[in-house]
Amino acid sequence: MAESEIEKARKEYPVWISLPILWGDQDAFGHVNNTVYIRWFESCRIVYGERAGFDQSAGGRDIGPILAAVSCSYRKQLTYPDTVHIGARVPKIGNSSLRMEHVIISERLQAVAALGDSTIVSFDYTAQKPIAVSADIRAKVEQIEGHPL
Amino acid sequence: MAESEIEKARKEYPVWISLPILWGDQDAFGHVNNTVYIRWFESCRIVYGERAGFDQSAGGRDIGPILAAVSCSYRKQLTYPDTVHIGARVPKIGNSSLRMEHVIISERLQAVAALGDSTIVSFDYTAQKPIAVSADIRAKVEQIEGHPL
Amino acid sequence: MAESEIEKARKEYPVWISLPILWGDQDAFGHVNNTVYIRWFESCRIVYGERAGFDQSAGGRDIGPILAAVSCSYRKQLTYPDTVHIGARVPKIGNSSLRMEHVIISERLQAVAALGDSTIVSFDYTAQKPIAVSADIRAKVEQIEGHPL
Amino acid sequence: MAESEIEKARKEYPVWISLPILWGDQDAFGHVNNTVYIRWFESCRIVYGERAGFDQSAGGRDIGPILAAVSCSYRKQLTYPDTVHIGARVPKIGNSSLRMEHVIISERLQAVAALGDSTIVSFDYTAQKPIAVSADIRAKVEQIEGHPL
Repeated sequence: MAESEIEKARKEYPVWISLPILWGDQDAFGHVNNTVYIRWFESCRIVYGERAGFDQSAGGRDIGPILAAVSCSYRKQLTYPDTVHIGARVPKIGNSSLRMEHVIISERLQAVAALGDSTIVSFDYTAQKPIAVSADIRAKVEQIEGHPL
Repeated sequence: MAESEIEKARKEYPVWISLPILWGDQDAFGHVNNTVYIRWFESCRIVYGERAGFDQSAGGRDIGPILAAVSCSYRKQLTYPDTVHIGARVPKIGNSSLRMEHVIISERLQAVAALGDSTIVSFDYTAQKPIAVSADIRAKVEQIEGHPL
Repeated sequence: MAESEIEKARKEYPVWISLPILWGDQDAFGHVNNTVYIRWFESCRIVYGERAGFDQSAGGRDIGPILAAVSCSYRKQLTYPDTVHIGARVPKIGNSSLRMEHVIISERLQAVAALGDSTIVSFDYTAQKPIAVSADIRAKVEQIEGHPL
Repeated sequence: MAESEIEKARKEYPVWISLPILWGDQDAFGHVNNTVYIRWFESCRIVYGERAGFDQSAGGRDIGPILAAVSCSYRKQLTYPDTVHIGARVPKIGNSSLRMEHVIISERLQAVAALGDSTIVSFDYTAQKPIAVSADIRAKVEQIEGHPL
């Protein structure tokens, strides 16, 4: 029997969070606003970053992640009430950046509601320029992903 | 003398809105949150849609635009107070979709703060499937852009 | 032994929801933004309304609830990560309005983080004026509260 | 001739900002979401605070304002497009707190759309307790208001 896209996603993305859709996440078109998906990506990216040892503390950081790009491909209109499961994986680490991929699964629709990706740069906030991803973060990301990158 | 990137953008994007950055647009990193840029894109996309004759009325639409994808490349960290100028252009209309490109200029930094794009699909909400972009919308977009597409 | 304020709240408020604090709920002061508490109140008010039979459907309603007033007393600064438990009760139903009270409990702080209230008016959107709370809603609210109002 | 409520507000509130309503400020009921009014209050409160010399810097503050309470009385349903004018005044300074009053005027409706107030406490973030409002802030607020408090 063919594996469902949800089962496939569950295996391919190592980090997951689950969030309820709020009534107020909906806009005047009567479905979840497009910016909310981007907030969901952020929420999961932060959890991934916690596990990978990013310095995500508020204010006064010297070195930390900065978001260089984000994209989202919307597949399903979502409405309240529902719960979304948001997955993240890192398929690639470059010298000073890493690419993260996102998936959103609707509990109610039992379907992938969106796919996306983020480019995260290791940033020296004092010098205002990218710096190499540390060996420690690289090792932790490989551990999360379960294979070398 | 070389044309600045701002002067260039001003010529290349036909639709503009200007918005003040709100203090509350900033997140715990102390700069404007990444989702706010996506909201700015939306705000300008809606204005473009008004001029192009999209049906953007709340609820009960039969046929209207639906956002299929969005992306944003973040170039500058923004902070309150500032004003952003948000431009949109449509470089291409397909059969049932159009591609819109976005630019965000920071008044204070006098620089391009972000670039992005949206894919907008002409959608039949009753049948839940894409339909052809109407001749009327196509004509209005070409008029806004100032050339055939 | 004295009953804690949390145990007391758990008894006095009949409707509860639990929500995780998102990293993005925090503002540039590094704690949860004041508007997020108001969104939490709304999220719980909507759940209460579902149970009480309010017509909260999007668009085109003839008669439905409208928010006339809201207030929030902030007691604790909240930060990510945490989970909040949000309670609602209706101490009073008037002719065309009802008063709802809100409480927010921080899981991590084990304390009441905020108290508030909403005034909800039964509204005829067509005539744009208040109308009497229906007997059906009145009965359901009394059932939720467990006593006559 | 009777003075309009707008003319009256214009005289009684010394600090004003103007903001466009965004399409995305609207919720599934098709009008501006209740939390947006609270964000507008915040935006004007911040401007008042700048003029009065509050330390509103991100992170690491020792002493600064903290919001203790907010309330909003909603008078008009607002929709996109519109511009709101948001006024603030301080009718009273206590020992360690001040009360700020808010008004929101709809450009399109030419009417007061909401009234509200905030309680702002002068807070020692290190000691986590209120401290006296400084003489400097008190003097600046009196100057803004145009009379002793």
